[in-house]
Amino acid sequence: MLIVPEELPDGGGAFLIAWQLTGKRVLVVGGGEVSSGRIRNVLIADALVTLIAPADSLHPSTRFFVDHSDRVTYHSRLFAGQDDLEDVDMVLTAIDDVEESRRICSLCRERRIPVNAADIPPLCDFYFGSQVRRGPLQVLISTNGNGPKLANIIKTKIEAALPSNVGRAVENVGVLRSKLREIAPGTGGDVSKRRMQWMSKVCTSWTLDELADMDAAKMDELLSVGWPENRTLARSSHKNDSTKNLCGFLASGRLRSASCGFAIGVCVTLAMSKKEQHGRRSPSEWLEHASKARLA
Amino acid sequence: MLIVPEELPDGGGAFLIAWQLTGKRVLVVGGGEVSSGRIRNVLIADALVTLIAPADSLHPSTRFFVDHSDRVTYHSRLFAGQDDLEDVDMVLTAIDDVEESRRICSLCRERRIPVNAADIPPLCDFYFGSQVRRGPLQVLISTNGNGPKLANIIKTKIEAALPSNVGRAVENVGVLRSKLREIAPGTGGDVSKRRMQWMSKVCTSWTLDELADMDAAKMDELLSVGWPENRTLARSSHKNDSTKNLCGFLASGRLRSASCGFAIGVCVTLAMSKKEQHGRRSPSEWLEHASKARLA
Repeated sequence: MLIVPEELPDGGGAFLIAWQLTGKRVLVVGGGEVSSGRIRNVLIADALVTLIAPADSLHPSTRFFVDHSDRVTYHSRLFAGQDDLEDVDMVLTAIDDVEESRRICSLCRERRIPVNAADIPPLCDFYFGSQVRRGPLQVLISTNGNGPKLANIIKTKIEAALPSNVGRAVENVGVLRSKLREIAPGTGGDVSKRRMQWMSKVCTSWTLDELADMDAAKMDELLSVGWPENRTLARSSHKNDSTKNLCGFLASGRLRSASCGFAIGVCVTLAMSKKEQHGRRSPSEWLEHASKARLA
Repeated sequence: MLIVPEELPDGGGAFLIAWQLTGKRVLVVGGGEVSSGRIRNVLIADALVTLIAPADSLHPSTRFFVDHSDRVTYHSRLFAGQDDLEDVDMVLTAIDDVEESRRICSLCRERRIPVNAADIPPLCDFYFGSQVRRGPLQVLISTNGNGPKLANIIKTKIEAALPSNVGRAVENVGVLRSKLREIAPGTGGDVSKRRMQWMSKVCTSWTLDELADMDAAKMDELLSVGWPENRTLARSSHKNDSTKNLCGFLASGRLRSASCGFAIGVCVTLAMSKKEQHGRRSPSEWLEHASKARLA
Protein backbone atom coordinates (compact mmCIF):
# COMPACT_ATOMS: atom_id res chain seq x y z
CA MET A 1 0.00 0.00 0.00
CA LEU A 2 1.42 3.38 -0.98
CA ILE A 3 0.98 6.19 1.47
CA VAL A 4 1.33 9.57 -0.18
CA PRO A 5 1.60 12.59 2.12
CA GLU A 6 -1.26 15.04 1.81
CA GLU A 7 0.67 18.04 2.98
CA LEU A 8 4.17 19.36 3.42
CA PRO A 9 5.67 19.00 6.89
CA ASP A 10 5.88 22.07 9.16
CA GLY A 11 9.36 23.55 9.20
CA GLY A 12 11.13 25.16 12.13
CA GLY A 13 12.69 21.96 13.45
CA ALA A 14 16.16 20.47 13.40
CA PHE A 15 17.59 17.36 11.74
CA LEU A 16 17.98 14.85 14.57
CA ILE A 17 20.80 12.39 13.92
CA ALA A 18 23.06 9.89 15.65
CA TRP A 19 26.54 11.12 14.69
CA GLN A 20 29.24 8.44 14.50
CA LEU A 21 32.44 9.31 16.36
CA THR A 22 34.18 5.93 16.73
CA GLY A 23 37.89 6.66 16.40
CA LYS A 24 37.18 10.27 15.36
CA ARG A 25 39.07 13.15 16.98
CA VAL A 26 37.01 15.73 18.86
CA LEU A 27 38.64 18.94 20.08
CA VAL A 28 37.14 20.37 23.27
CA VAL A 29 38.19 23.95 24.11
CA GLY A 30 37.54 24.95 27.73
CA GLY A 31 37.59 22.85 30.90
CA GLY A 32 34.60 23.97 32.99
CA GLU A 33 31.47 22.06 33.98
CA VAL A 34 29.81 22.42 30.56
CA SER A 35 32.94 21.05 28.95
CA SER A 36 32.89 17.99 31.24
CA GLY A 37 29.37 17.17 30.04
CA ARG A 38 30.54 17.42 26.43
CA ILE A 39 33.49 15.12 27.10
CA ARG A 40 31.19 12.59 28.72
CA ASN A 41 28.88 12.55 25.68
CA VAL A 42 31.65 12.13 23.12
CA LEU A 43 33.27 9.36 25.21
CA ILE A 44 29.92 7.51 25.06
CA ALA A 45 30.36 7.66 21.27
CA ASP A 46 33.93 6.23 21.45
CA ALA A 47 35.61 9.44 20.25
CA LEU A 48 39.24 10.40 20.83
CA VAL A 49 39.23 13.67 22.77
CA THR A 50 41.79 16.47 22.70
CA LEU A 51 41.17 18.91 25.55
CA ILE A 52 42.71 22.37 25.51
CA ALA A 53 42.22 24.39 28.71
CA PRO A 54 44.46 25.95 31.39
CA ALA A 55 44.89 23.53 34.32
CA ASP A 56 43.57 26.05 36.87
CA SER A 57 40.26 26.27 34.98
CA LEU A 58 39.47 22.54 35.07
CA HIS A 59 36.23 21.50 36.77
CA PRO A 60 36.73 18.40 38.99
CA SER A 61 34.66 16.31 36.55
CA THR A 62 36.82 17.43 33.64
CA ARG A 63 39.91 16.65 35.72
CA PHE A 64 38.45 13.18 36.39
CA PHE A 65 38.23 12.44 32.66
CA VAL A 66 41.77 13.77 32.08
CA ASP A 67 43.10 11.54 34.87
CA HIS A 68 41.12 8.39 34.12
CA SER A 69 40.40 8.10 30.39
CA ASP A 70 43.11 6.98 27.99
CA ARG A 71 40.98 8.49 25.22
CA VAL A 72 41.54 12.04 26.47
CA THR A 73 44.72 13.93 25.44
CA TYR A 74 45.15 17.03 27.57
CA HIS A 75 47.01 20.29 26.87
CA SER A 76 47.10 22.82 29.71
CA ARG A 77 47.00 26.05 27.70
CA LEU A 78 44.71 28.33 25.68
CA PHE A 79 43.58 27.60 22.10
CA ALA A 80 46.55 28.54 19.88
CA GLY A 81 45.09 28.82 16.38
CA GLN A 82 44.66 26.83 13.22
CA ASP A 83 47.37 24.27 14.07
CA ASP A 84 45.10 23.01 16.85
CA LEU A 85 42.53 22.07 14.18
CA GLU A 86 44.89 19.70 12.33
CA ASP A 87 43.24 16.25 11.88
CA VAL A 88 40.27 17.30 13.99
CA ASP A 89 36.81 15.95 13.02
CA MET A 90 34.62 18.02 15.34
CA VAL A 91 35.08 21.00 17.68
CA LEU A 92 33.18 21.85 20.86
CA THR A 93 33.96 25.13 22.61
CA ALA A 94 32.80 25.91 26.14
CA ILE A 95 34.62 29.10 27.13
CA ASP A 96 33.41 32.44 28.50
CA ASP A 97 35.23 34.50 25.87
CA VAL A 98 32.56 35.09 23.18
CA GLU A 99 35.02 36.71 20.75
CA GLU A 100 37.45 33.79 20.97
CA SER A 101 34.52 31.38 20.40
CA ARG A 102 33.60 33.32 17.28
CA ARG A 103 37.19 33.13 16.00
CA ILE A 104 37.40 29.36 16.60
CA CYS A 105 34.05 28.82 14.86
CA SER A 106 35.12 30.79 11.84
CA LEU A 107 38.38 28.78 11.56
CA CYS A 108 36.30 25.60 11.75
CA ARG A 109 33.90 26.82 9.10
CA GLU A 110 36.79 27.49 6.69
CA ARG A 111 37.90 23.88 7.19
CA ARG A 112 34.35 22.48 7.17
CA ILE A 113 34.78 21.07 10.67
CA PRO A 114 31.41 20.72 12.45
CA VAL A 115 31.41 23.00 15.52
CA ASN A 116 29.29 23.81 18.56
CA ALA A 117 29.95 26.90 20.69
CA ALA A 118 28.27 26.67 24.10
CA ASP A 119 25.68 29.42 24.68
CA ILE A 120 26.09 30.98 21.20
CA PRO A 121 23.38 29.24 19.14
CA PRO A 122 23.88 31.25 15.92
CA LEU A 123 27.45 29.95 15.69
CA CYS A 124 26.52 26.28 16.03
CA ASP A 125 26.26 23.62 13.33
CA PHE A 126 24.32 21.49 15.82
CA TYR A 127 22.64 21.71 19.22
CA PHE A 128 22.41 19.27 22.10
CA GLY A 129 19.38 18.23 24.08
CA SER A 130 18.48 16.11 27.07
CA GLN A 131 19.45 12.47 26.69
CA VAL A 132 18.34 9.10 28.00
CA ARG A 133 20.58 6.08 27.69
CA ARG A 134 19.71 2.44 28.37
CA GLY A 135 22.51 0.26 27.01
CA PRO A 136 22.44 0.51 23.22
CA LEU A 137 19.22 2.56 23.33
CA GLN A 138 19.68 6.33 23.19
CA VAL A 139 16.98 8.98 23.19
CA LEU A 140 17.52 12.66 22.40
CA ILE A 141 14.97 15.25 23.53
CA SER A 142 15.29 18.60 21.77
CA THR A 143 13.08 21.64 22.34
CA ASN A 144 14.91 23.44 19.55
CA GLY A 145 16.24 26.01 21.97
CA ASN A 146 12.82 26.80 23.47
CA GLY A 147 13.53 25.44 26.93
CA PRO A 148 16.44 23.30 28.11
CA LYS A 149 14.82 22.89 31.54
CA LEU A 150 11.60 21.70 29.90
CA ALA A 151 13.62 19.16 27.89
CA ASN A 152 14.79 17.81 31.23
CA ILE A 153 11.25 17.59 32.60
CA ILE A 154 10.12 15.75 29.45
CA LYS A 155 13.15 13.48 29.74
CA THR A 156 11.94 12.42 33.20
CA LYS A 157 8.52 11.51 31.75
CA ILE A 158 10.16 9.48 28.99
CA GLU A 159 12.46 7.70 31.44
CA ALA A 160 9.44 6.71 33.52
CA ALA A 161 7.69 5.33 30.42
CA LEU A 162 10.57 3.08 29.36
CA PRO A 163 10.47 -0.44 30.82
CA SER A 164 13.52 -1.04 33.03
CA ASN A 165 14.77 -3.88 30.83
CA VAL A 166 14.37 -2.08 27.50
CA GLY A 167 18.15 -1.78 27.03
CA ARG A 168 18.53 -5.52 27.42
CA ALA A 169 15.76 -6.11 24.86
CA VAL A 170 17.51 -3.87 22.33
CA GLU A 171 20.80 -5.63 23.02
CA ASN A 172 19.29 -9.08 22.47
CA VAL A 173 17.61 -8.05 19.24
CA GLY A 174 21.00 -6.77 18.05
CA VAL A 175 22.66 -10.11 18.87
CA LEU A 176 19.86 -12.00 17.11
CA ARG A 177 20.29 -9.78 14.04
CA SER A 178 24.04 -10.44 13.83
CA LYS A 179 23.52 -14.19 14.27
CA LEU A 180 20.88 -14.13 11.55
CA ARG A 181 23.24 -12.28 9.23
CA GLU A 182 25.81 -15.04 9.83
CA ILE A 183 23.47 -17.86 8.82
CA ALA A 184 21.79 -15.87 6.01
CA PRO A 185 24.45 -13.48 4.68
CA GLY A 186 24.21 -11.01 1.78
CA THR A 187 23.65 -7.27 1.25
CA GLY A 188 20.61 -5.92 -0.60
CA GLY A 189 18.08 -7.90 -2.63
CA ASP A 190 15.71 -10.62 -1.44
CA VAL A 191 17.70 -12.10 1.44
CA SER A 192 18.12 -8.68 3.02
CA LYS A 193 14.39 -7.99 2.68
CA ARG A 194 13.44 -11.42 4.11
CA ARG A 195 15.81 -10.91 7.07
CA MET A 196 14.27 -7.50 7.75
CA GLN A 197 10.69 -8.82 7.57
CA TRP A 198 11.39 -11.75 9.88
CA MET A 199 13.23 -9.60 12.45
CA SER A 200 10.33 -7.18 12.31
CA LYS A 201 7.86 -10.03 12.97
CA VAL A 202 9.94 -11.24 15.92
CA CYS A 203 10.01 -7.74 17.41
CA THR A 204 6.24 -7.29 17.13
CA SER A 205 5.13 -10.77 18.24
CA TRP A 206 7.44 -10.94 21.26
CA THR A 207 6.87 -8.53 24.14
CA LEU A 208 9.74 -6.30 25.31
CA ASP A 209 9.94 -8.44 28.47
CA GLU A 210 10.27 -11.61 26.42
CA LEU A 211 12.92 -10.03 24.19
CA ALA A 212 14.83 -8.94 27.29
CA ASP A 213 14.65 -12.47 28.75
CA MET A 214 15.74 -14.17 25.50
CA ASP A 215 18.78 -16.35 26.20
CA ALA A 216 21.28 -18.00 23.83
CA ALA A 217 19.31 -21.27 23.72
CA LYS A 218 16.10 -19.47 22.76
CA MET A 219 17.96 -17.51 20.07
CA ASP A 220 19.41 -20.70 18.62
CA GLU A 221 15.94 -22.29 18.56
CA LEU A 222 14.53 -19.20 16.85
CA LEU A 223 17.27 -19.26 14.21
CA SER A 224 17.27 -23.02 13.60
CA VAL A 225 13.50 -23.60 13.70
CA GLY A 226 11.76 -20.21 13.38
CA TRP A 227 13.79 -18.64 10.57
CA PRO A 228 13.64 -21.58 8.07
CA GLU A 229 9.88 -21.96 8.69
CA ASN A 230 9.28 -18.21 8.77
CA ARG A 231 7.78 -18.43 12.27
CA THR A 232 8.59 -16.37 15.37
CA LEU A 233 7.89 -19.07 18.02
CA ALA A 234 6.18 -16.40 20.11
CA ARG A 235 4.05 -17.58 23.03
CA SER A 236 0.32 -17.21 22.38
CA SER A 237 -0.12 -13.49 22.40
CA HIS A 238 -3.69 -13.81 23.73
CA LYS A 239 -2.83 -15.78 26.86
CA ASN A 240 0.08 -13.47 27.30
CA ASP A 241 -2.12 -10.43 27.18
CA SER A 242 -4.55 -11.68 29.82
CA THR A 243 -1.70 -12.55 32.19
CA LYS A 244 -0.24 -9.14 31.55
CA ASN A 245 -3.57 -7.43 32.17
CA LEU A 246 -4.08 -9.28 35.46
CA CYS A 247 -0.55 -8.44 36.59
CA GLY A 248 -1.10 -4.84 35.57
CA PHE A 249 -4.35 -4.71 37.55
CA LEU A 250 -2.77 -6.22 40.65
CA ALA A 251 0.17 -3.86 40.42
CA SER A 252 -1.95 -0.79 39.77
CA GLY A 253 -3.84 1.42 42.17
CA ARG A 254 -7.06 -0.05 40.78
CA LEU A 255 -7.05 -3.03 43.13
CA ARG A 256 -6.73 -0.61 46.03
CA SER A 257 -9.57 1.50 44.64
CA ALA A 258 -11.77 -1.58 44.23
CA SER A 259 -11.01 -2.69 47.82
CA CYS A 260 -11.81 0.76 49.20
CA GLY A 261 -15.05 0.76 47.22
CA PHE A 262 -15.91 -2.67 48.57
CA ALA A 263 -15.24 -1.62 52.15
CA ILE A 264 -17.32 1.55 51.77
CA GLY A 265 -20.12 -0.50 50.20
CA VAL A 266 -20.11 -2.89 53.18
CA CYS A 267 -20.04 -0.06 55.72
CA VAL A 268 -22.83 1.90 54.06
CA THR A 269 -25.03 -1.18 53.86
CA LEU A 270 -24.26 -2.13 57.46
CA ALA A 271 -25.09 1.38 58.58
CA MET A 272 -28.39 1.14 56.72
CA SER A 273 -29.00 -2.21 58.29
CA LYS A 274 -28.43 -0.74 61.82
CA LYS A 275 -30.88 2.01 60.96
CA GLU A 276 -33.32 -0.67 59.93
CA GLN A 277 -33.11 -2.32 63.33
CA HIS A 278 -34.08 1.00 64.88
CA GLY A 279 -36.36 2.37 62.20
CA ARG A 280 -38.03 -0.89 61.21
CA ARG A 281 -36.83 -0.75 57.63
CA SER A 282 -34.68 -3.50 56.07
CA PRO A 283 -31.99 -2.59 53.52
CA SER A 284 -34.15 -3.90 50.68
CA GLU A 285 -37.15 -1.95 51.96
CA TRP A 286 -34.96 1.10 52.20
CA LEU A 287 -33.81 0.71 48.59
CA GLU A 288 -37.45 0.22 47.55
CA HIS A 289 -38.43 3.32 49.51
CA ALA A 290 -35.57 5.31 47.97
CA SER A 291 -36.53 4.35 44.44
CA LYS A 292 -40.18 5.16 45.13
CA ALA A 293 -39.11 8.53 46.51
CA ARG A 294 -37.13 9.15 43.35
CA LEU A 295 -40.13 8.23 41.20
CA ALA A 296 -42.42 10.51 43.19
CA MET B 1 27.45 21.30 44.93
CA LEU B 2 30.03 19.68 42.69
CA ILE B 3 29.15 16.28 41.31
CA VAL B 4 32.22 14.40 40.18
CA PRO B 5 31.63 11.25 38.13
CA GLU B 6 32.82 8.09 39.80
CA GLU B 7 33.37 6.18 36.63
CA LEU B 8 33.89 6.61 32.92
CA PRO B 9 30.77 6.25 30.76
CA ASP B 10 30.24 3.05 28.77
CA GLY B 11 31.17 3.51 25.13
CA GLY B 12 29.49 1.92 22.13
CA GLY B 13 26.94 4.67 21.61
CA ALA B 14 26.55 7.53 19.15
CA PHE B 15 26.64 11.30 19.57
CA LEU B 16 23.00 12.39 19.39
CA ILE B 17 22.63 15.92 18.05
CA ALA B 18 20.10 18.31 16.55
CA TRP B 19 21.78 19.34 13.28
CA GLN B 20 20.89 22.82 12.00
CA LEU B 21 19.91 22.91 8.34
CA THR B 22 18.12 26.27 8.00
CA GLY B 23 19.03 27.56 4.55
CA LYS B 24 21.60 24.76 4.09
CA ARG B 25 21.68 22.75 0.85
CA VAL B 26 21.09 19.02 1.12
CA LEU B 27 21.65 16.76 -1.88
CA VAL B 28 19.41 13.69 -2.01
CA VAL B 29 20.44 11.03 -4.54
CA GLY B 30 17.70 8.53 -5.38
CA GLY B 31 13.92 9.01 -5.51
CA GLY B 32 12.38 5.92 -3.90
CA GLU B 33 10.37 5.57 -0.70
CA VAL B 34 13.42 5.82 1.59
CA SER B 35 14.43 9.00 -0.18
CA SER B 36 10.98 10.53 0.37
CA GLY B 37 11.37 9.96 4.13
CA ARG B 38 14.75 11.70 4.02
CA ILE B 39 13.30 14.68 2.13
CA ARG B 40 10.49 14.96 4.67
CA ASN B 41 12.97 15.07 7.57
CA VAL B 42 15.24 17.70 6.04
CA LEU B 43 12.23 19.86 5.08
CA ILE B 44 11.23 19.82 8.77
CA ALA B 45 14.66 21.36 9.41
CA ASP B 46 14.10 24.10 6.77
CA ALA B 47 16.79 22.81 4.38
CA LEU B 48 17.02 23.54 0.67
CA VAL B 49 16.84 20.19 -1.12
CA THR B 50 18.43 19.20 -4.42
CA LEU B 51 17.03 15.88 -5.63
CA ILE B 52 18.82 13.86 -8.30
CA ALA B 53 16.92 10.80 -9.56
CA PRO B 54 15.48 9.58 -12.88
CA ALA B 55 11.80 10.57 -13.14
CA ASP B 56 10.64 6.97 -13.68
CA SER B 57 12.16 5.98 -10.30
CA LEU B 58 10.23 8.50 -8.22
CA HIS B 59 8.00 7.18 -5.44
CA PRO B 60 4.63 9.01 -5.33
CA SER B 61 5.63 10.63 -1.99
CA THR B 62 8.88 11.89 -3.51
CA ARG B 63 6.91 13.17 -6.52
CA PHE B 64 4.58 14.96 -4.08
CA PHE B 65 7.49 16.88 -2.55
CA VAL B 66 8.90 17.73 -6.01
CA ASP B 67 5.50 19.03 -7.11
CA HIS B 68 4.52 20.90 -3.95
CA SER B 69 7.61 22.22 -2.18
CA ASP B 70 9.40 25.31 -3.43
CA ARG B 71 12.39 24.19 -1.35
CA VAL B 72 13.00 21.15 -3.58
CA THR B 73 15.04 21.54 -6.79
CA TYR B 74 14.67 18.47 -8.97
CA HIS B 75 16.96 17.03 -11.66
CA SER B 76 15.67 13.97 -13.51
CA ARG B 77 18.95 12.14 -14.09
CA LEU B 78 21.63 10.03 -12.40
CA PHE B 79 24.35 11.45 -10.12
CA ALA B 80 26.95 12.96 -12.46
CA GLY B 81 30.06 13.36 -10.31
CA GLN B 82 31.86 15.99 -8.26
CA ASP B 83 30.12 18.97 -9.90
CA ASP B 84 26.91 17.83 -8.22
CA LEU B 85 28.61 18.39 -4.84
CA GLU B 86 29.30 22.09 -5.47
CA ASP B 87 27.94 24.21 -2.56
CA VAL B 88 26.36 21.18 -0.95
CA ASP B 89 26.30 21.00 2.89
CA MET B 90 25.07 17.43 3.35
CA VAL B 91 24.47 14.38 1.14
CA LEU B 92 21.92 11.58 1.58
CA THR B 93 22.00 8.67 -0.87
CA ALA B 94 19.18 6.15 -1.15
CA ILE B 95 19.94 4.10 -4.25
CA ASP B 96 20.23 0.35 -4.88
CA ASP B 97 23.66 0.60 -6.53
CA VAL B 98 26.09 -0.09 -3.65
CA GLU B 99 29.18 0.72 -5.75
CA GLU B 100 27.79 4.09 -6.82
CA SER B 101 26.93 4.85 -3.17
CA ARG B 102 30.51 4.07 -2.22
CA ARG B 103 31.83 6.40 -4.93
CA ILE B 104 29.54 9.26 -3.82
CA CYS B 105 30.56 8.77 -0.18
CA SER B 106 34.23 8.88 -1.02
CA LEU B 107 33.79 12.11 -3.03
CA CYS B 108 31.95 13.58 -0.03
CA ARG B 109 34.67 12.49 2.36
CA GLU B 110 37.32 14.28 0.25
CA ARG B 111 35.25 17.45 0.53
CA ARG B 112 34.34 16.90 4.20
CA ILE B 113 30.65 16.89 3.35
CA PRO B 114 28.65 14.90 5.94
CA VAL B 115 27.04 11.91 4.20
CA ASN B 116 24.58 9.09 4.89
CA ALA B 117 24.22 6.13 2.51
CA ALA B 118 20.99 4.20 3.11
CA ASP B 119 21.57 0.57 4.15
CA ILE B 120 25.40 0.87 4.18
CA PRO B 121 26.17 1.78 7.82
CA PRO B 122 30.00 1.64 7.52
CA LEU B 123 29.87 4.46 4.94
CA CYS B 124 27.76 6.80 7.09
CA ASP B 125 28.86 9.82 9.12
CA PHE B 126 25.53 9.62 10.91
CA TYR B 127 22.51 7.36 11.34
CA PHE B 128 18.81 8.07 11.66
CA GLY B 129 16.34 6.70 14.18
CA SER B 130 12.64 6.82 14.93
CA GLN B 131 11.34 10.28 15.59
CA VAL B 132 8.52 11.96 17.50
CA ARG B 133 7.53 15.53 16.79
CA ARG B 134 5.16 17.76 18.75
CA GLY B 135 5.55 21.32 17.50
CA PRO B 136 8.99 22.55 18.55
CA LEU B 137 9.61 19.35 20.55
CA GLN B 138 11.54 16.63 18.73
CA VAL B 139 12.59 13.25 20.09
CA LEU B 140 15.05 10.89 18.42
CA ILE B 141 15.08 7.19 19.35
CA SER B 142 18.24 5.37 18.28
CA THR B 143 18.98 1.69 18.91
CA ASN B 144 22.44 2.20 17.38
CA GLY B 145 21.60 -0.16 14.55
CA ASN B 146 20.40 -2.96 16.82
CA GLY B 147 16.77 -2.88 15.76
CA PRO B 148 14.95 -0.26 13.70
CA LYS B 149 11.61 -2.01 14.32
CA LEU B 150 12.24 -1.95 18.06
CA ALA B 151 12.99 1.79 17.83
CA ASN B 152 9.50 2.12 16.38
CA ILE B 153 7.91 0.11 19.19
CA ILE B 154 9.74 2.25 21.78
CA LYS B 155 8.65 5.37 19.90
CA THR B 156 5.01 4.32 20.40
CA LYS B 157 5.60 3.99 24.16
CA ILE B 158 7.20 7.44 24.27
CA GLU B 159 4.38 9.00 22.24
CA ALA B 160 1.86 7.57 24.70
CA ALA B 161 3.81 9.02 27.63
CA LEU B 162 3.90 12.57 26.27
CA PRO B 163 0.95 14.77 27.29
CA SER B 164 -1.04 15.82 24.23
CA ASN B 165 -0.35 19.52 24.82
CA VAL B 166 3.41 19.17 25.44
CA GLY B 167 4.24 20.88 22.11
CA ARG B 168 2.16 23.90 23.11
CA ALA B 169 3.92 24.04 26.50
CA VAL B 170 7.35 24.05 24.80
CA GLU B 171 6.15 26.74 22.39
CA ASN B 172 4.89 28.98 25.20
CA VAL B 173 8.10 28.60 27.19
CA GLY B 174 10.00 29.62 24.04
CA VAL B 175 7.86 32.75 23.64
CA LEU B 176 8.29 33.62 27.32
CA ARG B 177 12.07 33.23 26.95
CA SER B 178 12.24 35.59 23.98
CA LYS B 179 10.04 38.16 25.73
CA LEU B 180 12.28 37.92 28.80
CA ARG B 181 15.37 38.44 26.66
CA GLU B 182 13.73 41.60 25.30
CA ILE B 183 13.11 43.15 28.72
CA ALA B 184 16.40 41.85 30.22
CA PRO B 185 18.89 41.70 27.34
CA GLY B 186 22.57 40.73 27.39
CA THR B 187 24.76 37.70 26.62
CA GLY B 188 26.79 35.92 29.30
CA GLY B 189 27.46 37.04 32.85
CA ASP B 190 24.97 37.66 35.64
CA VAL B 191 21.89 38.68 33.65
CA SER B 192 22.11 35.55 31.52
CA LYS B 193 22.46 33.38 34.64
CA ARG B 194 19.52 35.12 36.38
CA ARG B 195 17.35 34.68 33.28
CA MET B 196 18.22 30.99 33.15
CA GLN B 197 17.48 30.45 36.83
CA TRP B 198 14.15 32.23 36.70
CA MET B 199 13.02 30.38 33.54
CA SER B 200 14.06 27.16 35.21
CA LYS B 201 11.96 28.03 38.29
CA VAL B 202 8.96 28.83 36.09
CA CYS B 203 9.29 25.49 34.27
CA THR B 204 9.45 23.48 37.49
CA SER B 205 6.77 25.32 39.49
CA TRP B 206 4.21 25.39 36.67
CA THR B 207 2.76 22.11 35.45
CA LEU B 208 2.99 21.20 31.75
CA ASP B 209 -0.79 21.79 31.50
CA GLU B 210 -0.45 25.26 32.99
CA LEU B 211 2.47 26.09 30.69
CA ALA B 212 0.40 24.93 27.70
CA ASP B 213 -2.54 27.09 28.80
CA MET B 214 -0.41 30.20 29.40
CA ASP B 215 -1.81 33.11 27.37
CA ALA B 216 -0.31 36.49 26.47
CA ALA B 217 -1.91 38.22 29.49
CA LYS B 218 -0.48 35.65 31.90
CA MET B 219 2.95 35.99 30.27
CA ASP B 220 2.86 39.76 30.63
CA GLU B 221 1.90 39.44 34.29
CA LEU B 222 4.74 36.97 34.84
CA LEU B 223 7.26 39.31 33.21
CA SER B 224 6.03 42.54 34.80
CA VAL B 225 5.38 41.19 38.31
CA GLY B 226 7.11 37.80 38.63
CA TRP B 227 10.48 38.58 37.03
CA PRO B 228 11.31 41.81 38.99
CA GLU B 229 10.29 40.12 42.26
CA ASN B 230 11.94 36.82 41.34
CA ARG B 231 8.64 34.97 41.76
CA THR B 232 6.96 32.49 39.41
CA LEU B 233 3.31 33.31 40.29
CA ALA B 234 2.57 29.61 40.17
CA ARG B 235 -0.70 28.50 41.71
CA SER B 236 -0.19 26.81 45.07
CA SER B 237 1.47 23.61 44.02
CA HIS B 238 -0.25 21.73 46.84
CA LYS B 239 -3.80 22.71 45.89
CA ASN B 240 -2.80 22.10 42.33
CA ASP B 241 -1.62 18.62 43.08
CA SER B 242 -4.82 17.62 44.84
CA THR B 243 -6.94 18.95 41.97
CA LYS B 244 -4.70 17.08 39.57
CA ASN B 245 -4.93 13.91 41.63
CA LEU B 246 -8.73 14.12 41.75
CA CYS B 247 -8.91 14.74 37.99
CA GLY B 248 -6.51 11.91 37.37
CA PHE B 249 -8.60 9.63 39.59
CA LEU B 250 -11.85 10.57 37.86
CA ALA B 251 -10.28 10.08 34.43
CA SER B 252 -8.64 6.78 35.29
CA GLY B 253 -10.05 3.28 35.45
CA ARG B 254 -9.71 3.54 39.20
CA LEU B 255 -13.10 5.22 39.61
CA ARG B 256 -14.65 2.28 37.77
CA SER B 257 -12.77 -0.15 39.99
CA ALA B 258 -13.91 1.67 43.12
CA SER B 259 -17.55 1.71 41.90
CA CYS B 260 -17.44 -2.00 41.13
CA GLY B 261 -15.98 -2.65 44.57
CA PHE B 262 -18.72 -0.53 46.16
CA ALA B 263 -21.48 -2.36 44.29
CA ILE B 264 -20.04 -5.76 45.23
CA GLY B 265 -19.75 -4.63 48.85
CA VAL B 266 -23.41 -3.59 48.87
CA CYS B 267 -24.56 -6.85 47.25
CA VAL B 268 -22.53 -9.05 49.57
CA THR B 269 -23.83 -7.25 52.64
CA LEU B 270 -27.41 -7.31 51.36
CA ALA B 271 -27.08 -11.03 50.67
CA MET B 272 -25.84 -11.53 54.21
CA SER B 273 -28.70 -9.44 55.48
CA LYS B 274 -31.20 -11.64 53.58
CA LYS B 275 -29.56 -14.67 55.11
CA GLU B 276 -30.00 -13.02 58.47
CA GLN B 277 -33.74 -12.72 57.92
CA HIS B 278 -33.89 -16.45 57.33
CA GLY B 279 -31.09 -17.57 59.61
CA ARG B 280 -31.79 -15.14 62.48
CA ARG B 281 -28.39 -13.48 62.26
CA SER B 282 -27.99 -9.74 61.61
CA PRO B 283 -25.00 -8.50 59.53
CA SER B 284 -23.33 -7.22 62.69
CA GLU B 285 -23.94 -10.52 64.47
CA TRP B 286 -22.57 -12.29 61.45
CA LEU B 287 -19.39 -10.21 61.51
CA GLU B 288 -19.09 -10.84 65.24
CA HIS B 289 -19.55 -14.55 64.68
CA ALA B 290 -16.99 -14.55 61.88
CA SER B 291 -14.40 -12.80 64.02
CA LYS B 292 -15.07 -15.20 66.92
CA ALA B 293 -14.63 -18.11 64.53
CA ARG B 294 -11.32 -16.63 63.42
CA LEU B 295 -10.17 -16.22 66.99
CA ALA B 296 -11.13 -19.78 67.90
